[in-house]
Amino acid sequence: MRTGVWLVGARGSVATTSIVGALALRAGMAGPTGCVTELPEVRGPALPAFADLVFGGHDVVATPLAKRAEALAEAGVLPARLVAALSEELAAVEREVRTAASGGNQADRAAALVRDLTEFRDRHRLARVVVVNVAATEPACRPHPAHADPDALHAALAGPDEVLPPSSLYAYAAVTAGCAYVDFTPSTGLRLPALAALADAHRVPYAGHDGKTGETLLKSVLAPMFAMRHLAVRSWSGINLLGGGDGVTLADPAANAAKVRSKQRVLDETLGYLPQGDTRIDYVEDLGDFKTAWDLITFAGFLGTGMRLEFTWHGCDSALAAPLVLDLARLTAAAHAAGHTGPLTDLAFFFKDPLGDGTHSLAEQWTRLRAFTRRLHTGGADDPRG
Amino acid sequence: MRTGVWLVGARGSVATTSIVGALALRAGMAGPTGCVTELPEVRGPALPAFADLVFGGHDVVATPLAKRAEALAEAGVLPARLVAALSEELAAVEREVRTAASGGNQADRAAALVRDLTEFRDRHRLARVVVVNVAATEPACRPHPAHADPDALHAALAGPDEVLPPSSLYAYAAVTAGCAYVDFTPSTGLRLPALAALADAHRVPYAGHDGKTGETLLKSVLAPMFAMRHLAVRSWSGINLLGGGDGVTLADPAANAAKVRSKQRVLDETLGYLPQGDTRIDYVEDLGDFKTAWDLITFAGFLGTGMRLEFTWHGCDSALAAPLVLDLARLTAAAHAAGHTGPLTDLAFFFKDPLGDGTHSLAEQWTRLRAFTRRLHTGGADDPRG
Amino acid sequence: MRTGVWLVGARGSVATTSIVGALALRAGMAGPTGCVTELPEVRGPALPAFADLVFGGHDVVATPLAKRAEALAEAGVLPARLVAALSEELAAVEREVRTAASGGNQADRAAALVRDLTEFRDRHRLARVVVVNVAATEPACRPHPAHADPDALHAALAGPDEVLPPSSLYAYAAVTAGCAYVDFTPSTGLRLPALAALADAHRVPYAGHDGKTGETLLKSVLAPMFAMRHLAVRSWSGINLLGGGDGVTLADPAANAAKVRSKQRVLDETLGYLPQGDTRIDYVEDLGDFKTAWDLITFAGFLGTGMRLEFTWHGCDSALAAPLVLDLARLTAAAHAAGHTGPLTDLAFFFKDPLGDGTHSLAEQWTRLRAFTRRLHTGGADDPRG
Amino acid sequence: MRTGVWLVGARGSVATTSIVGALALRAGMAGPTGCVTELPEVRGPALPAFADLVFGGHDVVATPLAKRAEALAEAGVLPARLVAALSEELAAVEREVRTAASGGNQADRAAALVRDLTEFRDRHRLARVVVVNVAATEPACRPHPAHADPDALHAALAGPDEVLPPSSLYAYAAVTAGCAYVDFTPSTGLRLPALAALADAHRVPYAGHDGKTGETLLKSVLAPMFAMRHLAVRSWSGINLLGGGDGVTLADPAANAAKVRSKQRVLDETLGYLPQGDTRIDYVEDLGDFKTAWDLITFAGFLGTGMRLEFTWHGCDSALAAPLVLDLARLTAAAHAAGHTGPLTDLAFFFKDPLGDGTHSLAEQWTRLRAFTRRLHTGGADDPRG
Repeated sequence: MRTGVWLVGARGSVATTSIVGALALRAGMAGPTGCVTELPEVRGPALPAFADLVFGGHDVVATPLAKRAEALAEAGVLPARLVAALSEELAAVEREVRTAASGGNQADRAAALVRDLTEFRDRHRLARVVVVNVAATEPACRPHPAHADPDALHAALAGPDEVLPPSSLYAYAAVTAGCAYVDFTPSTGLRLPALAALADAHRVPYAGHDGKTGETLLKSVLAPMFAMRHLAVRSWSGINLLGGGDGVTLADPAANAAKVRSKQRVLDETLGYLPQGDTRIDYVEDLGDFKTAWDLITFAGFLGTGMRLEFTWHGCDSALAAPLVLDLARLTAAAHAAGHTGPLTDLAFFFKDPLGDGTHSLAEQWTRLRAFTRRLHTGGADDPRG
Repeated sequence: MRTGVWLVGARGSVATTSIVGALALRAGMAGPTGCVTELPEVRGPALPAFADLVFGGHDVVATPLAKRAEALAEAGVLPARLVAALSEELAAVEREVRTAASGGNQADRAAALVRDLTEFRDRHRLARVVVVNVAATEPACRPHPAHADPDALHAALAGPDEVLPPSSLYAYAAVTAGCAYVDFTPSTGLRLPALAALADAHRVPYAGHDGKTGETLLKSVLAPMFAMRHLAVRSWSGINLLGGGDGVTLADPAANAAKVRSKQRVLDETLGYLPQGDTRIDYVEDLGDFKTAWDLITFAGFLGTGMRLEFTWHGCDSALAAPLVLDLARLTAAAHAAGHTGPLTDLAFFFKDPLGDGTHSLAEQWTRLRAFTRRLHTGGADDPRG
Repeated sequence: MRTGVWLVGARGSVATTSIVGALALRAGMAGPTGCVTELPEVRGPALPAFADLVFGGHDVVATPLAKRAEALAEAGVLPARLVAALSEELAAVEREVRTAASGGNQADRAAALVRDLTEFRDRHRLARVVVVNVAATEPACRPHPAHADPDALHAALAGPDEVLPPSSLYAYAAVTAGCAYVDFTPSTGLRLPALAALADAHRVPYAGHDGKTGETLLKSVLAPMFAMRHLAVRSWSGINLLGGGDGVTLADPAANAAKVRSKQRVLDETLGYLPQGDTRIDYVEDLGDFKTAWDLITFAGFLGTGMRLEFTWHGCDSALAAPLVLDLARLTAAAHAAGHTGPLTDLAFFFKDPLGDGTHSLAEQWTRLRAFTRRLHTGGADDPRG
Repeated sequence: MRTGVWLVGARGSVATTSIVGALALRAGMAGPTGCVTELPEVRGPALPAFADLVFGGHDVVATPLAKRAEALAEAGVLPARLVAALSEELAAVEREVRTAASGGNQADRAAALVRDLTEFRDRHRLARVVVVNVAATEPACRPHPAHADPDALHAALAGPDEVLPPSSLYAYAAVTAGCAYVDFTPSTGLRLPALAALADAHRVPYAGHDGKTGETLLKSVLAPMFAMRHLAVRSWSGINLLGGGDGVTLADPAANAAKVRSKQRVLDETLGYLPQGDTRIDYVEDLGDFKTAWDLITFAGFLGTGMRLEFTWHGCDSALAAPLVLDLARLTAAAHAAGHTGPLTDLAFFFKDPLGDGTHSLAEQWTRLRAFTRRLHTGGADDPRG
């Protein structure tokens, strides 16, 4: 069952690492480290095989995938031998990457995107396509009355306004083309009432927001630890130092704010109170594709005794995100195939700022993920639309 | 339902903190921070109230509880105002602390311990007594043929040999006196076939081993995180710097070895493989009742990219352990009252080296603990002996 | 030779700790840990003895010193027994603390301050008085034409404008009263051409700016280490988490900017280039009088190999600053006595943002300090005014 | 003035990095980052140019330099493009590397070494040769009566005993051949009375011991910082995690002990007292050529307030050591040329465990180094033999 994976931001680090990795897995040149869908508790017949994934996408930059892959190899993110060995396969994917149209009103541009998606699906005879947003984080979205309702939205897009931010225009196009949608970034994407209604109308599932790859991943196990032990977290402060493209974007305070908000949500909702302290994001070019996060947690134990935990996480965002992008493409495609529509709240395991009201505890999200995939693999006794 | 808590090592830091804390809670002078049994998910009618706990115990040192409490206040472990306000109550507990007999053979000494326990139970008209070992860690136990079987053990104790290490002699006395037993240390305690058989024969429950208060607590949430994300942990190295009495004991390589072994078990059993690296324990007197642990974890993500996590935990062992001692006393007493006998494997949440074959994941241990306490509170549909 | 120490911000943590410490030293109840002027390389006959120091000061808050000292004892900054034992001596100092006048124009207020200083000097028959600013950090100073020249300044002060920020009004009063002045904070203080000219005219010495107590102290030994080893520092990022009064003040971005600027100067001037990265300051109330700074330094070695150093400094600002306040009072008084006037650039050892063009290397500053004090103690072959 | 650099352990990581680096510098393909002798304060006409250095050496392993260099490139220690571009030059050096003879008694083997050295010097018409020991650390040396005196040593070497450890046999051969000797390791090398006497007799200079590249480098600036501020260091504990060849060697407790001892010396001699705490060395294969050191320092400030500093150093030993090897070869050759003989105590800047009684403060060692090189460059007013 051939499945399309259409990456918005197809020439970025995360997309390139996802593509190289999937090609390497298909060729038997690499193992599935980091791929949650290859764990015994999750894998199964409902998921499309790596060999069944066909990649395409949009980007605004023109650097070819192969060049990007070489740069990532030099930076220690990708093994140089993989990049060299997969040059032909990368060239084939390159032919499926389109530069996003920039002229006309938003309705015209959306129509062009829909055309790209349907042609991609037809050309490769794909059972379905999952659109995954891995483009740079946008500033917070400016409200517009047309966000409230699909009809108003249709009308407004035909006008001169920039009604939707780019991530939401992609979401609009994806849904209209009958494609499932995954938002791996904190950008607005499908988080507008008009778009959610449209997704329901087109009976497509969607997942998001903001892949959980570093500091928040740790928060989602450490905050429950403090809660389960009835320890009182007094302050939780952190700083994220990042190089790479995302670093520059997030140095912009507007984008930064969105990211920081989604990072603190896990604390409030897990602990039941918000401790003192902030999370900072700073750009340090020298760190390249790596990210260093330092957090200080002060907490009180029995009779108020003060204690502290510090951690430093030195991770490579692309290497952490890419296998999750593949996981989400496979899971969302399988959910689509099984008839799921609307928000896939059972995929909260993957996200900093998950859809729905569920828990932020990684362990409880894991339990939900396993139950969800078990139902997918067995055909599920419960209503798959539930 | 008045319940006795008999502490082996009653004048140590952990015991003193437990006693002061319970008295403060009873007097409404402190909140239950750190007490798992006061979380909404765990608390309920089956547990004896703090006001129902009556303390006693043995120790080999003679420093009065009040003196010890003052020293702990000076070291920042206990609030000075609590210690001052509770001096009368502490004096009352002091009268229930016995110095362990040292003459005669082990049978004689065990008989003296049994007498102390039964007199304590009778004097205070207690429904039952839980014996909790919080004494300093012993060196690894020397094997003896009489460890295999209760009859051989009875016979050997009457002879001249030191058949049982002190922790096991207490366990023997506790079980013989019909008391439940909790081993909060890595010492041998009830972990001998003869004693397990004896516990079954006397129909008492027991729990252990080695309270999970610091580095291992973190391991029990971080190792599952790596496993759930299919990340390959390549090395996990750590050093524990501790002052206080336990520090001196553990500087002894023999005791150290037992502790280190129980600390690494969680990794092997959670990850399914043992990463490179060791855990060290060093004594640094200046740290007093606090402990600093530093761990470095190196791991590989997608396509082998190397990453790292470091943490520093600066905790106060007494403040972390004491509320768990109270939790375990309450839970074990409730289990005893409900007819449970043998190893309480559902209490694995509290231990570094838990009884039974269960998971080392804190989240899964938490699920088991909640199910267990729910059954205790509701009278339990399942066989409480199961 | 009795010497006055007039503290601006006399009821703050730093001032209180300085006073309690000096009283304790005088009473033989504490040792001189942290006092540079008690090291064999620095001490000597030219310095006034601790017993010769007489304390007074101004503050805008009214909490008595004794109350503040008790709060510091509770927070673990001062030993409770010292505070209790010195209550009479503290009450005596309390009588020398004035609340700053707030009515009238700045000339009136300056005159009142001068009166307070001269009365203090006369009342206690002091050989001289050193005014030390340990008040909370001010926002950056707003330029005013009268800052350029003493005559313009005199004229402007008599008008309705707030011509000088508070720290500079104190500096103005100190100099006018013939007192030496030390700025222990990053506030403007004496750093205005009109005030420098005035200090020269009144032949008083002055020292500053901004006591070097934490992260910058480390920078002043680590940056030279990288330089001496010809290692290329690529980035130096840091975050300072502080509770206490100074934390609140510095959460104000305007004050923050001044502090951050003085913190980065050491890097640029020691390395000869400014690495990537910023220093952040955040307020975390729970840290109280303590401060946690975390720095990440990435650097390149031979052939460009990337490496890293991280440090966490957990210090108590008051305990670090107070002995330096005493050192500076003693050294500045001795310099005044020896006839020094103008900026005391040889005291750069103590400051984040030292007066003059000298080195930021702590070791070289130390060499200068030793030479300076040797000259003081021996009467100095070179011209003391040099 | 062509100068030979004869490396004992010529195919190890440090030697290979030194050779590749020197070749790259000569070819203008790399800059001198990490080379102290290229700093303005140190460089000058007395030092042989990089282009004048001719490399040779001994090793017991047979892996060619080029292979080793490729492995180091894969591990991120050397840039792959340099290794590729310098293959011819590396092959030329390869021809100068000898496998150490293993038959015969120690006198025979020493004679073979002397022959190798003199032939190397003659073949390349070298003005002089510096022998640098960069071989793996040896266990502590077993005492032998012949260590006391040159005559006894000559006699004993002709016998059947292994009188000298390998590093000392090399030192013996170097001195006998009239070569200067540098010990970059903690092994015994020239530290035997008989060898020191022999070096004097042959009028050669020597330097050592144990290159200061990581944790001890930090200690040599941090310990003086605490001392200059009169802060009381209560404990200094550390752990060094190392992969690579040296890691395996040092996992051997005997070698470990020598290293640990030289690491603590700096504290005792700088502070004037030895704080609590130990330094541990552990082998973690996954770290490869990198080393992670973590240190915790607890210290007391004014009135005893407890504070702490933690640091993590993540360095590449080869990249840190190699430029110092070149520095030492240049400096020792220049000293030899200038007529210096005996221990070069002015080179303490480079060593963990320096010859002579001098300071361990990096800043003071730097002052001495600069004075020394200034004298070398100017022909020196003082007696160069002094």
